[in-house]
Amino acid sequence: MTDENPWAKARPAVRSPDKRERQRERDETPRSPAPSLYGERRPAVRSRPLETHDDESEHPAHSAPRPAHREARWYGINACMAAFAKRPADLRKVYLTEARLGVLKPVLAWCVQHKLGYRVVETDDLDRLTGSRHHEGVCFDMLRRPALALADLIAKPFAASLLLWLDGVGNPHNLGALLRSAAHFNAEGVIVPNASSLDLSGAAARVAEGGAEAVPLARIDDEHAALAELRDAGYSIAATLPREGTSLYATALPKRLVLVLGAEGEGMSDALVDAADLRIGIPGSGIVESLNIAASAAVVMGEYWRQQREGG
Amino acid sequence: MTDENPWAKARPAVRSPDKRERQRERDETPRSPAPSLYGERRPAVRSRPLETHDDESEHPAHSAPRPAHREARWYGINACMAAFAKRPADLRKVYLTEARLGVLKPVLAWCVQHKLGYRVVETDDLDRLTGSRHHEGVCFDMLRRPALALADLIAKPFAASLLLWLDGVGNPHNLGALLRSAAHFNAEGVIVPNASSLDLSGAAARVAEGGAEAVPLARIDDEHAALAELRDAGYSIAATLPREGTSLYATALPKRLVLVLGAEGEGMSDALVDAADLRIGIPGSGIVESLNIAASAAVVMGEYWRQQREGG
Repeated sequence: MTDENPWAKARPAVRSPDKRERQRERDETPRSPAPSLYGERRPAVRSRPLETHDDESEHPAHSAPRPAHREARWYGINACMAAFAKRPADLRKVYLTEARLGVLKPVLAWCVQHKLGYRVVETDDLDRLTGSRHHEGVCFDMLRRPALALADLIAKPFAASLLLWLDGVGNPHNLGALLRSAAHFNAEGVIVPNASSLDLSGAAARVAEGGAEAVPLARIDDEHAALAELRDAGYSIAATLPREGTSLYATALPKRLVLVLGAEGEGMSDALVDAADLRIGIPGSGIVESLNIAASAAVVMGEYWRQQREGG
Repeated sequence: MTDENPWAKARPAVRSPDKRERQRERDETPRSPAPSLYGERRPAVRSRPLETHDDESEHPAHSAPRPAHREARWYGINACMAAFAKRPADLRKVYLTEARLGVLKPVLAWCVQHKLGYRVVETDDLDRLTGSRHHEGVCFDMLRRPALALADLIAKPFAASLLLWLDGVGNPHNLGALLRSAAHFNAEGVIVPNASSLDLSGAAARVAEGGAEAVPLARIDDEHAALAELRDAGYSIAATLPREGTSLYATALPKRLVLVLGAEGEGMSDALVDAADLRIGIPGSGIVESLNIAASAAVVMGEYWRQQREGG
């Protein structure tokens, strides 16, 4: 396969990255900041541009700046493979370590077929490209999925449906963990106010382990309008509160449910708490102030699953 | 109060760290590695040694190397305050930003009273000291708690008791998240094989938000002996599996329960799975391979709480 792409053969590095990568996974020490996608700190592997026919067809002027904001840098084997499986046409570039040549064979075949650039690089190069040591030997530049409208998340009438609404959550690891649990428990989507800085980063997608592809994000401008639209569609709004609220385990969770989660510390806006139909707390010892937001979401989604599927 | 400790007054920096710290909390970019506690990269704030009377009384030889392994560098306001509340005698040193002078007043009073060093530093100094930007303006050097024996975790006969057993878990953030949820759901302790590299780091304690003080760790050498000891004390052993296993929601969870959790990817050892009395799976969509280990633990502990407290 690589015979068809002589450039990809340019660095036949021989080493054993797997062991190093395993070690890196276990090491907690964080890394230096990620280089910007097309900024000054572009690493050495960028020395030969990766522009391809596909890229050029998108940008006929050639001199125009590349729409970097339309692309995201995915990493982690599960995140990358899930993205490729779901929307291969969004793939733009592939970086991989030699050890990943086997598992990425179908992806590289796709790259050759569609004249997309791919490159075998060292683990250190991937560290710099992704700004992380958790890339697991693979990094894809992917077009971002367009943001959905709320209407796109709303399930057909009367069907059971679980949505998450994130108010003020800004931590990409929490978002990634939420998306992974949401995919596991079959939530249909995540609602994020436009005012939120939250976006699906490579770090969040990596932590989501493929869940980011399965659970779409919708952006909303007007909270009141969104609440009305959800209620019109038969959803109940449940605010998850750290201390107050009715016990989750004493609550019959509605079949169509929007679970509102607030940022840790600040919590969610009073307006949202007031607007909610249910105010739910997860009972506990009181030793810690609350569960982590991703743990809270997992616990409530698990209880929703139990009540819906196991007859409550 | 600071009048009694002129050294603490040496750097009356005037700035507004709170805003910067909030920004840092929201920024996902990781940091450079932490300097070692007494290594070459000791930051500038170490220029005047922090040895105090208390330190010296521990190490009368003075020239002997300090037992750094006996100390841990805690950071994060909840982790530090929980440690101080629980075992103030283990406090060795305090670093804080000026903005934390108010909330740490009782701690600084303790330092003055017990001749412990404390120092007001810049946020950047704390970044280097902790190797993290998630220190929230506070860092305590604390003596580590001694490791417990398994017998110390075992609850009195017939009482409900939930223990966690971590097989191969090596990620400090997962450990921290587990400890926070364990504290919330009143688990009595965490069992870690001696062969495991897992240890309670500052990062894990920070993520645990105080939970690390509430939930003790016990180390075991011999898995078979530990399983026998637990069974003798009336515990059932439940392995949590990503794919196989009886549905959590179709399982009556025993009142005395050891929840065994394996590392992601590798899972737990076959010997432990075989030795378990129960093999539990968390049902889901199958879209992602499994829940994150901390999310799995939270979901199972929540269900245990529901069955024990809310009558199942």
